[in-house]
Parts: sequence; C-alpha cells; structure tokens
Amino acid sequence: MKPKNIHLPFLYIILFVISFVAGKYLYKVEHFDVPLDHFGYAVDHTFKIRYLVNDSYSSGKDSPILFYTGNEGDIELFAQNTGFMWEIAPNLTALVVFAEHRYYGKSLPFNNSFEGPTQTGYLTSEQALADFADLVKHLDPDSTRPVIAIGGSYGGMLAAWFRMKYPHLVEGALASSAPILQFEGITPCGIFSRITTSVFSISSANCSANIQRSWKTMQDLFAKEEDRKFLNETFKFCKPLNSTDDLQQFFDYLVDVYGNLAMINYPYETNFLAPVPAYPVRAFCQKLEKKLEGKDLINALQEAVSIYANYTKQSSCLNYTTANGALGSNGWDIQTCNEMVMPMCSDGKNDMFFTVDWNLIDFEKNCLQKYKLKPRPNSVT
Amino acid sequence: MKPKNIHLPFLYIILFVISFVAGKYLYKVEHFDVPLDHFGYAVDHTFKIRYLVNDSYSSGKDSPILFYTGNEGDIELFAQNTGFMWEIAPNLTALVVFAEHRYYGKSLPFNNSFEGPTQTGYLTSEQALADFADLVKHLDPDSTRPVIAIGGSYGGMLAAWFRMKYPHLVEGALASSAPILQFEGITPCGIFSRITTSVFSISSANCSANIQRSWKTMQDLFAKEEDRKFLNETFKFCKPLNSTDDLQQFFDYLVDVYGNLAMINYPYETNFLAPVPAYPVRAFCQKLEKKLEGKDLINALQEAVSIYANYTKQSSCLNYTTANGALGSNGWDIQTCNEMVMPMCSDGKNDMFFTVDWNLIDFEKNCLQKYKLKPRPNSVT
Repeated sequence: MKPKNIHLPFLYIILFVISFVAGKYLYKVEHFDVPLDHFGYAVDHTFKIRYLVNDSYSSGKDSPILFYTGNEGDIELFAQNTGFMWEIAPNLTALVVFAEHRYYGKSLPFNNSFEGPTQTGYLTSEQALADFADLVKHLDPDSTRPVIAIGGSYGGMLAAWFRMKYPHLVEGALASSAPILQFEGITPCGIFSRITTSVFSISSANCSANIQRSWKTMQDLFAKEEDRKFLNETFKFCKPLNSTDDLQQFFDYLVDVYGNLAMINYPYETNFLAPVPAYPVRAFCQKLEKKLEGKDLINALQEAVSIYANYTKQSSCLNYTTANGALGSNGWDIQTCNEMVMPMCSDGKNDMFFTVDWNLIDFEKNCLQKYKLKPRPNSVT
Repeated sequence: MKPKNIHLPFLYIILFVISFVAGKYLYKVEHFDVPLDHFGYAVDHTFKIRYLVNDSYSSGKDSPILFYTGNEGDIELFAQNTGFMWEIAPNLTALVVFAEHRYYGKSLPFNNSFEGPTQTGYLTSEQALADFADLVKHLDPDSTRPVIAIGGSYGGMLAAWFRMKYPHLVEGALASSAPILQFEGITPCGIFSRITTSVFSISSANCSANIQRSWKTMQDLFAKEEDRKFLNETFKFCKPLNSTDDLQQFFDYLVDVYGNLAMINYPYETNFLAPVPAYPVRAFCQKLEKKLEGKDLINALQEAVSIYANYTKQSSCLNYTTANGALGSNGWDIQTCNEMVMPMCSDGKNDMFFTVDWNLIDFEKNCLQKYKLKPRPNSVT
C-alpha cells in the first residue's frame, strides 16, 4: 500500500461534524484584534480572532479564568464538547473563555483563502499562543486573576505549551490527550497505531485480528469483478470502488474511523466527531467478536463501521471520500507541513493496520509541492 | 530642551570601544545556520550566526554549558568582558559558549544593509532567543548537559527570557543588570535617571548637584559669544559648539557618559565601554566634590569628563558626535522601534538631568518615519 498522510485523526474533528445538535452551553461571542505576525515587523497586517465568554459564574477581579486554548476547528465545537469546564466553573467562580485558533472557524486572516506561504505562513502554534497571550492580557489587564489553560488533543498541546511559554500569564494547564512528544526523534512512529490497536484488542482480541485480516480480504475481493460487486453492495458506497485509488481512499477512511473511535471511546453517547453510542469501540467490536473470514468478515465489518458512519440511520450510503476543501482540514494539512510534523507509521504486525512507512524526505517533498512549505520537524521541540 | 532618545546607554556599548586591547580569553569561532523567521513560513531565508566556544574545561557529555546570550554588539566584546564565566568554567568543568545576537557583529542576515521592515523586521528578542535555542540543541543534541544562560544588560534580559521561554532547554539563568520590567505601564519612566543620579550622589552630594547645575551654566555660557569661546576651549571639542543643535548633542553625549559611568562603576580598571580607572564614578566625582558655579564648574566638569573620554590621554580633542552609521547602533535603534520600547524620562528635580518627557505617541511617530516600524510597546511583557 502506498504511504498516506496518517495525521488525519485531528483533521477529522471538523469533517465529521454533520449532525451537531443545538448548543447546550451559553456564551457571548467576542472578537479581538491580533497582529498577523507577532514575532516580526515585515508585515503590518492585523485581523480578528473570535472568542466565547461566559461571566455568569465569575465573582469579580480575583476569580480565575478557565481558558480553552482552541484547536484546529470552529471554537463553538470545543465549547459545546468540553463539559468539564462548564462543570467546574461554578465551584471555582471562574470566568469561562474559549479562544479560537487563528485560521480556523471564523478567525480567518485572509477569509477562506489559503494561497501560498504569504497567506498560510503565519498559521503556527507559536503565533496562536501569542494571540492567546494577548487575549489573556486584554481580559485581565492587571494580572489579578489566575489563568488555567485547558485543551484537548492539539488544543491540549497548546494548553501545555501556553503554560510553559507564558509562565507569567498562565498559572496552570490541563492538557488532555496532548501528544507533545509525538515529534521527530522522540516517539517511535508506530506508537499511535499500536495504541489504537490495543483499544480494539482490549474489547476483543478477535476484533483487532479481524480488522488486521480485513485489508487483504478486501484486496482479494476487489481483484475479482463479481466479488468487487459484493464489496460495493455490502458497504453501499455513495461512490462505488472502481479503482485501486478508490480502494486506497476507503482504506484511509477506515484507518481514520478506527483512530477516531479510539479517541472518542467515551462512556456516554456523543456526537463530537460523529454521532456514536456510549463505549463506541465496544459496540463496534461486538460485531467482530468471532474469528471471521472472507465475505462473513466483510458483512460484519460493514455492520461495525455503521456504528460510526451511520449510527443515526440517516445515511443512505457510505461516503468514504474526504472533503479536502473544508476549512479546518486545509488548516491542519498546512500545519503538518510547517511545524506539526508528527511521525506516524504502521507495520501490520504490531498493529492491525497495513504497512505505512514514515519517510520524512518524501513527506517534505510533498509539502513543498502541495503548499510551498518547507517543514521544520524539530521546531516545536 | 527637546526630548531625545535616551535609550542610548545600551547602544554606546559598541560605539565607545575604541582602544580595545588584545583578547585575554581564547575561543574557537564557529557559525551556525538559522532561519530568518523562526515563527513564520512566508520567507524561506536562512543565514549564519556566529558563536565562540571553548571546550578546554569541559569534561564531556554531562558537563554544563555556560551560554552567554549575546546582546547588541560584536560577541567578542562580551566574551572578553565577561570574566566571571571564564573564572567559574574550570570549577564547573563547563563548556563556554558566547552566542552572537542576530544583526550584530558578524551575524548579519543582510550584511550591512538595514533597508526597511523586510530586512529589519526579524531583529527581535524572540527571534534571537529562537536562534539560541536552535544552537543549544545543536551543541547538546541529546539534552544531557545542564545549560545555564548568562548575560548582562540587554543580554541579561535575554538570559532571563531564555530560561522562561525555553524551560526544557535552559536549567538556570544569571541575568545581570537586566531591566526586564522597564516597559510600558510597569516601571515609571524616571527610574533610570534617578538611579543614575543616586550613584553620583553616593560618591558626593555636591557631585550630582554640580551636574544638575551644569546644564543651565553651559546654556548661559553658550549664549554669550565670549563665554562660548571659553566653553569650546575648555572642552577642546573636535567640532566646536556652533549651534543649539550642537549644544543639545553635547548634552545628550554627557547624559550617555553619566549613564555609562554608573553602569561600569566596577572596582577595577576596565576598557569595556571606554578605558576607565577603578571606581570611575568616584574618580569622576573627586573633581566635583566642592560646590562649584560658573566657569569653575565648567573647568572641573571638563576634568571629570576626561576620566571617561580621555583616561589614556590619547585624544587630542573631545568627540561628542555619535556615529549613527555604526552597525550596533543601527540594530539597537531598530529594536527600540519594534518591541524594546523602554520608557525613559528625567525632570531635573528628582534627578540631575534636564527635562526629557516620555511621549509614546511622538516616539511611535518617529519610529514610523525613521524605520517604517510600528512599535508594539507591550509585546515583550
């Protein structure tokens, strides 16, 4: 199989929010001017970042600020899915703030345009943290309030870095699921694949083994015209698999689904990345508990994938094509091509995936070609 | 008196090194590639910064690194005048490193050109610290060595910030005479003038009082042609005082001399900013111990200033004109117009100087006009 960009788990945070319910939590929407470039004076452009604020629990100038360091997506998504902050705010008499990350949601320096490094070059974690720092100073000009940074995933990395880089502004950080060590030369590239696999293996050893076998099974079925028809009918693809590129795209989709399921394996029903039941990996693996092969395996896999792809039974077909035009995905793709170079790979032996090598040189070539960006793989470490 | 740029104390570090003796300490000169912009990807320029290294005391991979965070000037100047690092290095079995600040000495991204923000825009403390961070990673790729940042004056600010901003790379910092709180809204603008005054008052109350009176005395003498002749002959100016602009320039020069004397009031002979005796303020004030007025005051002042301006008796005339074309001064002038906006003023009552107001709006206007730079007075705090 050809190498693929397996950084997608973060990216899909945006793409899969199809049936997002009306907000549970209330806030005011505010905007704040920031310089495009905090660390240089060659360009003099400013733009507005958006933030959400709720001061109904706050008791005044001394009460803390719970500050969500927004990640790669519309900040309202994170505001509605970070219940912990809303739960603890009343007890702490805290001001609740969700700050949107530049280049995502409505915090767009060049609207929806991402044309080359002159526009995309300032989409970095350091610039985003400097936005947040300016916002903290704006919210608390006299520095009387303790500020606790909170975030999950890339937002968690930002929370940790915010505390490290701005110790005079940030008292503490809660960095949830924050892979700050997933960079060149620090963490082996296969770790994410192994951990994802273990989440499925814990549910049932047959579950991950079935997934591991499924790739070859699907390739074999795809190779024969009659079996390919079975494959297409079983999964009810919106766009049938006609080429090996289509098959590869479907495989990539499945890799992302498995990663997402592991990441959102919450003990309650959610619709954060997609509407799923409580313990979605358990629900998924219940369909693959027995050792299965051939078409039986594919039938079971289809049912299992539906737990993620069609839990609400609203979809008439399975859409495995990813919409790269979506804003959030643009942003994260760009970040992986500047400083968020997080080596990932799989070998199909120590994990349930197919072989994907990590090749930094190819990765860099691709970034230069696609975005004219030359990655700096060690810049954030 | 018209307001002046009273940030010059830092700047003169470079300008006054006239009779710099042959180096006392030995090092290898090395160079290291850094990106022009560490925090953006719009420009893809790299250049070399210079650093000086001595590994003769180091015992190997575990021994510490004493890392001088170079300031606004040729790094060799600081290497030769930071004896403390050389003194403690053998006991600590330390690697001694002096890193040159970008845009100074021989670490020039655009050679000697400082043409507009596209060239000058990356002369910031954050970019310099990122250079230093890359250099630390280069010197100690496995992070086995404790790194202690050391610096004085602006270099001391950098040492402190280096520890704060890169806690994972820097174990500790010795920030000597580092005014990290001398920024908008934090420290009153008159503090530097008052402290300078107190250094002279401690030597003798008459000393600072004489200086305080001298401005008016010189203005009065300048106003009459015969007395002006006396003034010119007494000080033996290389360029006689012919206009009020000349007089102002001489006053500015004296303000800088007094600031420098206070800053280099070491208990031993030095030639760091200029060749001076041990306790140079004491030597200076010995000439102004009695209450003096009129021409007596001027005669004594001339003798006192000679302690700084002509201690080696090599100069046949007093040069009060500052060479703004000098590299180091270009750099620091630019930095005061981006993020190093350090409010300074004097009132002639609580200090021994003439009245200089601090007016941020005028200051910003001047920066825009002179360098096309819009200062961000709170960016480093």
